[in-house]
Amino acid sequence: MTITAAVSGASGYAGGEVLRLLARHPEVQIGAITAHSNAGQKLGSLQPHLHALAERELVDTTAENLAGHDVVFLALPHGSSGAIAAQLSPDTLVIDAGADHRLESAAAWEEFYGSDHAGTWPYGLPELPGARAALAGARRVAVPGCYPTSAQLALVPGFAAGVLQTDDVVIVAASGTSGAGKSLKPHLLGSEVMGGMSPYGVGGVHRHTPEIEQGLSRVAGSEVRVSFTPTLAPMARGILTTATAKAAPGLSPAQIRAAWEEAYADEPFVHLLPAGQWPATKSVIGSNHAHLQVAVDERVGRVIVVAAIDNLTKGTAGGAVQSMNIALGIEEMTGLTAEGIAP
Amino acid sequence: MTITAAVSGASGYAGGEVLRLLARHPEVQIGAITAHSNAGQKLGSLQPHLHALAERELVDTTAENLAGHDVVFLALPHGSSGAIAAQLSPDTLVIDAGADHRLESAAAWEEFYGSDHAGTWPYGLPELPGARAALAGARRVAVPGCYPTSAQLALVPGFAAGVLQTDDVVIVAASGTSGAGKSLKPHLLGSEVMGGMSPYGVGGVHRHTPEIEQGLSRVAGSEVRVSFTPTLAPMARGILTTATAKAAPGLSPAQIRAAWEEAYADEPFVHLLPAGQWPATKSVIGSNHAHLQVAVDERVGRVIVVAAIDNLTKGTAGGAVQSMNIALGIEEMTGLTAEGIAP
Amino acid sequence: MTITAAVSGASGYAGGEVLRLLARHPEVQIGAITAHSNAGQKLGSLQPHLHALAERELVDTTAENLAGHDVVFLALPHGSSGAIAAQLSPDTLVIDAGADHRLESAAAWEEFYGSDHAGTWPYGLPELPGARAALAGARRVAVPGCYPTSAQLALVPGFAAGVLQTDDVVIVAASGTSGAGKSLKPHLLGSEVMGGMSPYGVGGVHRHTPEIEQGLSRVAGSEVRVSFTPTLAPMARGILTTATAKAAPGLSPAQIRAAWEEAYADEPFVHLLPAGQWPATKSVIGSNHAHLQVAVDERVGRVIVVAAIDNLTKGTAGGAVQSMNIALGIEEMTGLTAEGIAP
Amino acid sequence: MTITAAVSGASGYAGGEVLRLLARHPEVQIGAITAHSNAGQKLGSLQPHLHALAERELVDTTAENLAGHDVVFLALPHGSSGAIAAQLSPDTLVIDAGADHRLESAAAWEEFYGSDHAGTWPYGLPELPGARAALAGARRVAVPGCYPTSAQLALVPGFAAGVLQTDDVVIVAASGTSGAGKSLKPHLLGSEVMGGMSPYGVGGVHRHTPEIEQGLSRVAGSEVRVSFTPTLAPMARGILTTATAKAAPGLSPAQIRAAWEEAYADEPFVHLLPAGQWPATKSVIGSNHAHLQVAVDERVGRVIVVAAIDNLTKGTAGGAVQSMNIALGIEEMTGLTAEGIAP
Repeated sequence: MTITAAVSGASGYAGGEVLRLLARHPEVQIGAITAHSNAGQKLGSLQPHLHALAERELVDTTAENLAGHDVVFLALPHGSSGAIAAQLSPDTLVIDAGADHRLESAAAWEEFYGSDHAGTWPYGLPELPGARAALAGARRVAVPGCYPTSAQLALVPGFAAGVLQTDDVVIVAASGTSGAGKSLKPHLLGSEVMGGMSPYGVGGVHRHTPEIEQGLSRVAGSEVRVSFTPTLAPMARGILTTATAKAAPGLSPAQIRAAWEEAYADEPFVHLLPAGQWPATKSVIGSNHAHLQVAVDERVGRVIVVAAIDNLTKGTAGGAVQSMNIALGIEEMTGLTAEGIAP
Repeated sequence: MTITAAVSGASGYAGGEVLRLLARHPEVQIGAITAHSNAGQKLGSLQPHLHALAERELVDTTAENLAGHDVVFLALPHGSSGAIAAQLSPDTLVIDAGADHRLESAAAWEEFYGSDHAGTWPYGLPELPGARAALAGARRVAVPGCYPTSAQLALVPGFAAGVLQTDDVVIVAASGTSGAGKSLKPHLLGSEVMGGMSPYGVGGVHRHTPEIEQGLSRVAGSEVRVSFTPTLAPMARGILTTATAKAAPGLSPAQIRAAWEEAYADEPFVHLLPAGQWPATKSVIGSNHAHLQVAVDERVGRVIVVAAIDNLTKGTAGGAVQSMNIALGIEEMTGLTAEGIAP
Repeated sequence: MTITAAVSGASGYAGGEVLRLLARHPEVQIGAITAHSNAGQKLGSLQPHLHALAERELVDTTAENLAGHDVVFLALPHGSSGAIAAQLSPDTLVIDAGADHRLESAAAWEEFYGSDHAGTWPYGLPELPGARAALAGARRVAVPGCYPTSAQLALVPGFAAGVLQTDDVVIVAASGTSGAGKSLKPHLLGSEVMGGMSPYGVGGVHRHTPEIEQGLSRVAGSEVRVSFTPTLAPMARGILTTATAKAAPGLSPAQIRAAWEEAYADEPFVHLLPAGQWPATKSVIGSNHAHLQVAVDERVGRVIVVAAIDNLTKGTAGGAVQSMNIALGIEEMTGLTAEGIAP
Repeated sequence: MTITAAVSGASGYAGGEVLRLLARHPEVQIGAITAHSNAGQKLGSLQPHLHALAERELVDTTAENLAGHDVVFLALPHGSSGAIAAQLSPDTLVIDAGADHRLESAAAWEEFYGSDHAGTWPYGLPELPGARAALAGARRVAVPGCYPTSAQLALVPGFAAGVLQTDDVVIVAASGTSGAGKSLKPHLLGSEVMGGMSPYGVGGVHRHTPEIEQGLSRVAGSEVRVSFTPTLAPMARGILTTATAKAAPGLSPAQIRAAWEEAYADEPFVHLLPAGQWPATKSVIGSNHAHLQVAVDERVGRVIVVAAIDNLTKGTAGGAVQSMNIALGIEEMTGLTAEGIAP
């Protein structure tokens, strides 16, 4: 079986990562590669690491150019996926790496993104309870945000098993700069980021906050609110998320840890590390794997879960390809078997 | 007035930073510079950035060599300050950059450091309520740990003013690798740390936990327990601390923020940034300054305080020199006026 | 066809990279994984990025444990390959990632490595003239050093075509810290390398100097001496080599450039970039690809060639696997098709 | 004596560094601080590391605002200093950190900068033979480029003493990203530069080439041409320059080294390190010091000199303040005594 795929936003980091993975996917043939201002250029001049596609020419991001493929990946600025998706056939698998179709609440969308809500699509985080069934055969998929991917992988097993209390969740995460995309902003210059750290979007204003709360609330069965603080770290890739919630009363550390052991026992990409070994983002760079560790601080009655992913792979393009595999009935790890690049 | 100072542990990062600051301190003349295995070498071969002292020869770290100075700085491995301090004159100002004399609880010391408690000295964090009075004229000073410095600067005003609840404090901090010293451990190799982040000492087991709780409990007037998670960031210097606690009920964001505005209005080294501007460690590198910002997340009822310091300067050697100035009646900023090095 | 492979030195960077590539090589089944002090541990605790092999236990590096495989990869300290190789069957393909079998001159070996010369094996840089013929069917292969790989890829086409003069070659290269291995030396600590650059082995004393001269002299047909200066860059992986030699008289820039165009026109891993586009190490990280660019400075009569490789992949383990493929008659790119990880 | 100083281009890296140094200069009082698009903002919002000046408001960069000070520092885009300097009093000391007044050859200026030549001012590299005499009492000073500062400090003693041949000089340098300024270009984004190296301006086209040749030719007494290759390194600050030329015939390594020993024996900021110790950029970060080492490779008859400076301090703002001190008869090290920040 050979699938034809079109990729938009190919000059950006998310689009480039989708192409990096698809270039070596045994079931996929890459069709149209589209961009906005860079249309007409060769991919090799914009993404020189993609040797197999160096001679391919970028075309305009239009419904016409994206039509006629089995799969279309949208890696466009937030708010611009809805219009183009509406012009694509309902039989085409459309995978939106942007935020447009993640949130169920139109009010939350409008509050955090300031535009009209484009609707809600099946959510491409296969490790969530029931997610694979919803993705199988789907023709529209919303790829989760990078922070929400790591935060939900960290906390969902605890809420699903009822070993965490829902009323006081705190999440602090450090992301590599590629999470901010290729946008030309002074605070993203190498001179500004190298050798330092800084927070941003503090106090519940980061756009990923409602997405995290939506996912945690669904599995918890009641509303979960989180204190979420993202920080910018001096690295190009990777997210290290420290997530903590109060332990349900009367449980031993072993009983608590069992929730994660059981949830991820058979997951191909999510790894609860042996006790005492802590996740490091470098162990998953370039791979679709996630590393987790759970600690119980009995002095304060809190469970601390640390998760490490590559924001561009498992956090964006890898999750998108994994969801594509499930939607099309391809073995889930196909094209995603690469190990992390370390050191 | 000219003060003679001896510095031990001169081949390490803390000792080197003390020398960097003292080399340009207008009131200080540097006497003995001591080390352990590097005794006999010239400082220039070990700390080539210290031009003014390049030709100075290191001598053994003995009470004899440290005696006869007005001030002695101890930058020794944890657990080794007590013995040598006991041999120094009570009239000599001894400033311990190690952990030995920070904790009031012998039980906590033994639990976290596994040796006999050397005793408790006046605590060298001048910005704490009452600290300057305790330091004035003191002849023994315990320099705070780097994480406790940032965590206490972040939270103390809120507890002192009663705008924070004491029952659920969460602190996540990212430190540069120099905080771990010059020890030859595989996880501190450049190949391991560059481009990645990882946590360590998760679950309340980090040695700075009891020191942070001691400081917060004192100002809160009741026992404060914290969930503290330190992480290692790919930078040589700097700590970014994200500290959060529940807001006391019935307060407006402005009333909450006022606690920090008032606490630091006249502080020469601690700066509450204008609303909307967030601390970046790069703004304080090489300086004794601390940058803070406060946010109130009314959705979850939490106050989030972010603090940025240089772990080696304000977090260690700068705090030590600032305390020396106070103890000896020298103007507090003397020798500490350098700005941060940015970008 | 399935090949069984044993890998020694699995806890180091070179051994880990060989395993990373073999883990996804469709024709290879990994047998014994050996180490020295870490024997008995699970690979996942030492190389957590290698998910497919996490549960594999390391055994001692002995001829017994390495025997009985089709291929044995030696990633051992310099000087220790010879003894163990001598105990392996002549029918086994032994690929030495160490330096022991690279040099033809026993005198040069003794001068630069200070031990007895173990002998000379076929040289595993397939892109050199005649190299593939020498590797086909070989049962012993010496993997080139990382600097010599980049330096020879940069200059060999010019000497082979006679467009470069042999009498005044200057090479300055910047390497990531993984090139120095996992050795616990103070100058390799993250605190020392992050944010700075420094040279080492200046003045012709670096051990890769005779290896570079051997390779260049062979193709030039006369003795080539080089001024080689290696520098340590604040990155974990990658080598950027700037190599320059005088242009032969009477040639146009186009005639000079043609030497590289022709040499690499059909090479699967070596890419002469379009004119005006310069190599960046980030474009080849984690891949077996090399990027080159050639400039002619007519003002001074010099040709400047810049080459970028990943020191651990094309510079070590990738070149080793590429040579294995050729020696065993497997398609050369098998297991080496991954693109670079960027950004 | 108190000097009033105005600083233009205060929102950029060069202007910010001039302000960082002047803020603690005991003889200087900072007057007008000017910018272009950022006029009207407070300095603290743009340069948060400059605590002493945080409340100062930026004004427009006009001759009116710059007038009436003893010293005016111009840190403006190349090509824009000439016009504004022409409007300033001949009695005012004008120090141009831009390129406009460095080159003696109008033809070279027009070839490399593409505009009309603004003229030539006394050159602010005090360590050059005769430079201090030319700077004493000067009212116009051209600050050298950062690469030319390191290249001339590396090679001038050898040409002045006649121990180097002039006919085949090769220079390869690695610079931190701040050397490219705060310009918003994709290749300067943190995601692009962290973890990688790349060259630029290869083949004699970099604008600093004619400035380096001008300086070397003057001391050599005959025309010197250089092959100069600059590279971008993953660090915010620092330049490591590797410069090599052929040794004059018949000299011993000791005779060659003596040229640098004698040239820099009494220099306060330039340090020839003890034999065997190599320069590291981290040793001079934030300081006005330069570290050098000289090696003689007798195998190839070349002298290799490596120089390390901070491109923003000794390479720009520090050299500017040092020249100001000389021009105004202030002790040369005043305001420049800070040590490097390491690690």
